[in-house]
Parts: sequence; C-alpha cells; structure tokens
Amino acid sequence: MNKQQLIEQIKLKKSFLCIGLDTDIKKIPEHLLKEEDPIFAFNKAIIDATAPYCIAYKPNLAFYESMGVKGWIAFEKTVEYIKKNYPEQFIIADAKRGDIGNTSQMYARTFFEEMDIDSVTVAPYMGEDSVTPFLTYEGKWVILLALTSNKGSHDFQLTTGTEGERLFEKVLRKSQEWANDENMMYVVGATQGRMFEDIRKIVPNHFLLVPGVGAQGGSLEEVCKYGMTKDCGLIVNSSRAIIYADKTERFAEVAGIEAKKVQEQMAEQLKSIL
Amino acid sequence: MNKQQLIEQIKLKKSFLCIGLDTDIKKIPEHLLKEEDPIFAFNKAIIDATAPYCIAYKPNLAFYESMGVKGWIAFEKTVEYIKKNYPEQFIIADAKRGDIGNTSQMYARTFFEEMDIDSVTVAPYMGEDSVTPFLTYEGKWVILLALTSNKGSHDFQLTTGTEGERLFEKVLRKSQEWANDENMMYVVGATQGRMFEDIRKIVPNHFLLVPGVGAQGGSLEEVCKYGMTKDCGLIVNSSRAIIYADKTERFAEVAGIEAKKVQEQMAEQLKSIL
Repeated sequence: MNKQQLIEQIKLKKSFLCIGLDTDIKKIPEHLLKEEDPIFAFNKAIIDATAPYCIAYKPNLAFYESMGVKGWIAFEKTVEYIKKNYPEQFIIADAKRGDIGNTSQMYARTFFEEMDIDSVTVAPYMGEDSVTPFLTYEGKWVILLALTSNKGSHDFQLTTGTEGERLFEKVLRKSQEWANDENMMYVVGATQGRMFEDIRKIVPNHFLLVPGVGAQGGSLEEVCKYGMTKDCGLIVNSSRAIIYADKTERFAEVAGIEAKKVQEQMAEQLKSIL
Repeated sequence: MNKQQLIEQIKLKKSFLCIGLDTDIKKIPEHLLKEEDPIFAFNKAIIDATAPYCIAYKPNLAFYESMGVKGWIAFEKTVEYIKKNYPEQFIIADAKRGDIGNTSQMYARTFFEEMDIDSVTVAPYMGEDSVTPFLTYEGKWVILLALTSNKGSHDFQLTTGTEGERLFEKVLRKSQEWANDENMMYVVGATQGRMFEDIRKIVPNHFLLVPGVGAQGGSLEEVCKYGMTKDCGLIVNSSRAIIYADKTERFAEVAGIEAKKVQEQMAEQLKSIL
C-alpha cells in the first residue's frame, strides 16, 4: 500500500487507529480454548468486529512465536484473513528485526515476499546495511524504531552526541539518507508528549506509528497536538485496551465498541485537517 | 549452561568455535532437496560432522522464519537434535529480539521456557525493560549487541556521547547495572580489531560472542590478541565459511574438515592460558 492509499483510507474512515493483535493464549476468553486454533479464532472475531473503525492491524510476532509452530500457523492465517476480507487494511508485522545485510534480506523475504505484508518494524542499532534490504520492495514500508514508548527508551535513545543530537534524532536524520516518506515510517511512543515537536522538525512529512495509547498511558490529544500533519501522518496503535476489554463471550462486540470510541475521538482530531 | 560449564567445555575441546546454522534452502546441496525436511537434514549432517570441534551452535532465526511454518519446524527439530545428542553444546538463538517488557517476556518464554535454549541475542536500543525479562531464567544468557561486525555498526554504535562515551561503550557499562558475567555476554564483531582492547576495559570478564571470522573477513589472531581473557572469554562464530565449504554430497565431511582447521588454530591460541 502506498502513502496516498493510506491517506485515503484515513480520510474515508475518519480513523488512524491501528489495532495491535498481541494475542496471548493466557488472556483470551476461556470458551475459545476448545476451538481448533484459539488464537486465530480470537483474531478473526476481533478483526470482524473492529475493521470498520481502524485502518491497520499490527500482529506482534512475539506472541505468535511463543507458541512455536502453532503460533506461526495462527499468524499466517491471520494475515491471510485480513488480506482476503479487508484488503484495504494496512498490515504491520511488529517484529523489531534488524541484522547484518544477508540476514535482514532473509527477514525481508519472509515478510514482504512470502507473506506480502505491508510493513515491518525494524531496530536501527546495526545501522544502514541492516535496514536497506527491507527498502527494495515497491509499496512496502520499514517502520524504524526512533523513540519508543517504554521507560527503557531513556537509557540510550535520549543520549546526546557530541554533535548536539540525541540518538533518536540521529536515527531520524541519518535514515533519511537511505529512505524517504514513501517507504519509511518511525515508531514514536505516545508517552513521549512534547517530544513530537522535536521529531516533526526532522521528519515533517513522515508517518509515525504511535504505540502507547491505552494500557501504556499515552494521550491521544497530546499526540495529535504535537504530531499531526496536514495528511494526518499518524497511525496510533492500541492493543490491550481494545482486544482485552472484555473476557466473556461478548469480547469481540466489546472490542468493537471500544474501537468505535477511539475512532470517534480520532474523527474529532481529524476535523482540523479534513 | 553456566559459565563454569562453558569454560570446562572450551578447555576439554581446546575450542571456542561456534558454528552458525544460517541454513538457506537456496544454498544447501541439491541432493538434499528430495528429503522430507531438507533444512533439518542439512543441519543434522553438519552437526554430526562438526560437533567434536565446536562448543556451540547458533541457528539464525531469520533463515528459519523465511520458510514460515516449515522453517519453524526445522528450527525446533534442530534444537531438539542438539539437546538430545550433544547436550554439552551451548545453543544460541540468534534472534536479535528486544521490545517493551510484556513483549520481551513473550520472546523469553519462547526461547527459554518452550525450547529450553541456553541463550538469545538481544538488541539494546529499547533499553533496560526490553532486556531484563530475559534475565530471570537461571542458567540462561542474554547476548546483547554491543559492537557488531557490519559496516552499519559505524552509523550509531560509534556515536560519541557528551559524557565522552561511545554508544557501544554506554551499552556495555549501563547493562552491567542489570546483569553480570554469569547471565550476560556481548556481541562484538571480529572485524573490529583493536576495539577489543577498549571493550575489555569495560567488561574484563564477560564472554564475548564474536561473529565475522570467515566470510566477513575478521582475523582470529587479532580477536584473541586483544580480546582473550584468562578463561578464554570468547565464543567465535563462523557460519558460511564452514557450512557452505562444499556443495556436493561430501558437504558435511568438508564442513567437518573446515571446523577442525579452525579448532586447531584455536588450540594454538589457547596455549597461552591453558
């Protein structure tokens, strides 16, 4: 999916919500455990209930890998289900990969060739040749970690270099030598508040993937105030607050209601640019 | 496996060689493609031929994931095969994971609980709470990226901070607040030469996992000269130069010969400390 198509979806749905499919066998409603593939059954129901209110889904690979082969099957089935039934949805493989060139190439092959997923999250620590193998696919995106939502983001990402730049700023600036706003986005945590101002100085037009609204405590208003562009430029993710909003047989319906609430808040925020 | 057991294996085998199982369906000998599971068949033959000369195996997850479910099956079978037949071998899941706490916990569950693997490589960009979930398992190890072997290592890892520390040095220093030399090792590329001296000033006793000897051009002599401790303190990895040394039906035998050559060079290097 290219940038223009993504912007059109956001305008059409008045939403820039991404739903994180952090599906944990220990957290899904008990009645699903009798299904042949409980993880997929959960995802399918969540997707059907929430698709009108979001523009992206983000399966978190850790949750699928933790179940080994069964988990990978559920992951593949989930991606296929979205692609077949909701082809307008942007899919993010939240994998935080990144390795030497020949290895990153294998990861790119997995997500972009084998599975035809739109985007993958990548960690920048290993530099240019760990990222560029992901950039050779037309219409596919790297979502590079910049300033994450967790407490540990302070440990290294905020380190100021002798050139006066903080590490996350260097990542933003340097990576523009390899990519542009048609094939790269950045992860910026919703918990980072006014830091969005500093980020927009370096990447005024790039889309940002923003986790941390909901369970992690970030504020949608603040993110929009400091981070929104004339094309929106934001994909805001919520995982736990939506998918685990209810643990009964009504879980999907309640997830839909929660997603709709967030979509309505987003529609408010979009009024200024639509 | 704890540190003492690892040191004992190194002394016993006069080797600190790790063999990287970067098994690529496009690179293995053609005659294996008629096997039911060509990836596992290749790994099994390589392991049987090389086990006397190495002390560790490092399956690179990217290569298995690129084959989807089949790849995960081959990965699990490979780990089980090593654990059953060569329980003295140290196993490294080269995954370069790292995410917010609840997600890193899932990755730790995968590698340490479900698969009972000895260690996993972790990327430091997201800081403390992305790493610590891996540190709660007795006898298991985090192998944290510090200074990698690739060209891109210069992009961010060598950035000097205002405190006068380069990023990789900050990673080494800071991570010692969370872990010690009994549960953490560091990745340092063999291509980094004299930088090992600087690294040993900060982590004099930690084991280092050293990729980049062989296909990537690092020198074993230099790594030992500047990086070896009284307990060896090194696990040096070679992947392509050993496992793809020959592409005929003799591939495993030739891999064994190549591994033995490296082991003999290592035995020389170990003379000074054994």
